[in-house]
Amino acid sequence: MGHGVVGSGVAEILLTHKQKLFAGLGEEIYIKKILDLREFPDSPIADRFTKDFEEIINDREIRVVAEVMGGLRPAYDFVKRCLKAGKSVVTSNKELVAAHGAELLAIAKEENVNFMFEASVGGGIPIIRPMNQCLVANKVGEVAGILNGTTNFILTKMIQDGMTFADALKLAQDLGFAERNPAADIEGHDACRKICILASLAYGRHVYPESVHTEGITSITLEDVNMAEAFGYVIKLIGRVKKLDDGKIDIITAPMLVPFKSQLSNIDNEFNGIMVRGDCTGDVVFYGKGAGKLPTASAVVADIVDCCKHLKARRFLFWADGDGSNIIDWRDSVSAMFVRLTGDDAVAKAEKVFGEITTVSGDNELGVLTGEMSYREFESKCQALEAEGIQVLSGIRIGDI
Amino acid sequence: MGHGVVGSGVAEILLTHKQKLFAGLGEEIYIKKILDLREFPDSPIADRFTKDFEEIINDREIRVVAEVMGGLRPAYDFVKRCLKAGKSVVTSNKELVAAHGAELLAIAKEENVNFMFEASVGGGIPIIRPMNQCLVANKVGEVAGILNGTTNFILTKMIQDGMTFADALKLAQDLGFAERNPAADIEGHDACRKICILASLAYGRHVYPESVHTEGITSITLEDVNMAEAFGYVIKLIGRVKKLDDGKIDIITAPMLVPFKSQLSNIDNEFNGIMVRGDCTGDVVFYGKGAGKLPTASAVVADIVDCCKHLKARRFLFWADGDGSNIIDWRDSVSAMFVRLTGDDAVAKAEKVFGEITTVSGDNELGVLTGEMSYREFESKCQALEAEGIQVLSGIRIGDI
Repeated sequence: MGHGVVGSGVAEILLTHKQKLFAGLGEEIYIKKILDLREFPDSPIADRFTKDFEEIINDREIRVVAEVMGGLRPAYDFVKRCLKAGKSVVTSNKELVAAHGAELLAIAKEENVNFMFEASVGGGIPIIRPMNQCLVANKVGEVAGILNGTTNFILTKMIQDGMTFADALKLAQDLGFAERNPAADIEGHDACRKICILASLAYGRHVYPESVHTEGITSITLEDVNMAEAFGYVIKLIGRVKKLDDGKIDIITAPMLVPFKSQLSNIDNEFNGIMVRGDCTGDVVFYGKGAGKLPTASAVVADIVDCCKHLKARRFLFWADGDGSNIIDWRDSVSAMFVRLTGDDAVAKAEKVFGEITTVSGDNELGVLTGEMSYREFESKCQALEAEGIQVLSGIRIGDI
Repeated sequence: MGHGVVGSGVAEILLTHKQKLFAGLGEEIYIKKILDLREFPDSPIADRFTKDFEEIINDREIRVVAEVMGGLRPAYDFVKRCLKAGKSVVTSNKELVAAHGAELLAIAKEENVNFMFEASVGGGIPIIRPMNQCLVANKVGEVAGILNGTTNFILTKMIQDGMTFADALKLAQDLGFAERNPAADIEGHDACRKICILASLAYGRHVYPESVHTEGITSITLEDVNMAEAFGYVIKLIGRVKKLDDGKIDIITAPMLVPFKSQLSNIDNEFNGIMVRGDCTGDVVFYGKGAGKLPTASAVVADIVDCCKHLKARRFLFWADGDGSNIIDWRDSVSAMFVRLTGDDAVAKAEKVFGEITTVSGDNELGVLTGEMSYREFESKCQALEAEGIQVLSGIRIGDI
């Protein structure tokens, strides 16, 4: 369902990799129908296109459906109806999984079919399946990732080439890495959906994007980037979820300072990287292209193959619904902070307010790394500084990653 | 079978992570017997130890066996007998898989049981399963990895701290990262076994370690390391296999120059990293702890869980036997080279012999990066240089990774 960028890639791989897929599966995967409202007269399988969803839902020979339309409507209704009709569904649609994953997984369980979404996070990077299977013997303490290629490309251009945010965004748009309306990327919503999916998978209860505090990168300046570098950090947009000692989770999407020594610090340009911290494995990092036609399509096809292998036996991939009660208030989340200040006697006043700090002097401003505190505490300390005549130019979390 | 470092870790995880494993599987995994010749009176499950393999093979309640003894004897016989008795087997034993993988996979197929070995490569890093499943829709062009933590630790100490090979080896031994007899690590045999397993998996025919040219790191000097850095590279021990246009494979284990911009260049200390180059995904990199009790044990447990989920339906994990006829002669393998030379007029003579080169001058020596050539050609060019009175101090391949 859907013959756009990803959908046409899925069809292409199924046709060009037929032999390899046959070798791995022992059966041929046949594309019975392709749903799209547009016409594709030049497609080698032009005869299989349909504009009518009913032709798919009513075709009992169709056992597996790939939803690669994107968006919530009509994808949500179509997927639900397919699952209820006893068809397995795979999707690359992170918006759908983040908004309705728990419900769709429950329907799949009831109908004894599979609902898979490897492509919804990290594009071609295997992450859903490794987290679900290989790391089954780990208690996951934290998952943190660079989950959006557009913002990572923009930040990389700011860090490596000294471009301003506006220029880097324009370049990303010119190169096709950013949409003409880039809001979902640069305001962090896309990364948020992905960390919601990973958090739901890691901790077994659905986390809805509405429950997650999300900051984008629109307010990150070259001064932030340069001062961070002076401290030994790069700024990355990070989706992160941590399990706390009381069993609750601390989840956020926000720009963070990532230390040079972190494996996530040198994941550049449009690439994605995801760190999973297991109690047995320690840190495991997955790296690759987080988007694009063929990387994403190859993840969809891997799910299709897995569905074909498990037409009778369901794969165990499940989480329960969630009401947000297992998520702490984002203002209670604790981290060290990077702050840029300006004003007279900034060092002394910052020490008075923050306690022990590390500082770097810049042009007419001071860079500060603080100790750990809740964001609530940080806000009140910033007010205290402002009261002392110090202007807080920016405050960015330091990632423990 | 085996209650050493990894085996005791497997028992520990099965006991301490019981609840999480139950949630993922829906059934309890019960340790029926532990085979070890030693006594473990203080173990919480001391009553389940046995010194007699027959007690395991004859116990029809035992459906899954974990072989974590290491070595070929008696592991090979025990695993074969378990598979033939209809038990699924998981192993962390790379020596066993590299030497007998094809035969054991064939027996598993015949008996309709599973033979799994996620822990045999990359310790706690998920790699076998992602390669086998998630990347099923890719033609794999190349796999290259830092597959041995001991040598990576030694090289890191040479690169970052300027330690000599001998001092770094001693430190590795003192810290427990290297065995008292370190030959299997520093001469590259351990890394070779692992790239053999990955090559067999990627290309469907068993590659035996005897067919793979293997160089260790014992001849790498601080001069090599420093000169490589001057060119923008680090030296890493790399296991690498490439598919060539004629369908044959080019496989080698050797130290290589890895460019700073490569994701493999900043995988340091005892960590491992594996790059898989798919035609659809592009480069995907997996990073983590490649050894150690709990990381390795957690991979064994993940396989045990997968076996328990598939007691009736076999997982598709298979390759055919191989006779080496699909492997090119290592001297025909083509790469650019890094060379250190000394002697009069070295630049002019090197240009005459190698053609276009990049050079860096050092103390009484010249560093050279050449264009691509076969190793055979490289050897004859080195002879030509020696004939001109130039001494070749070292020659190391440049990795296209």
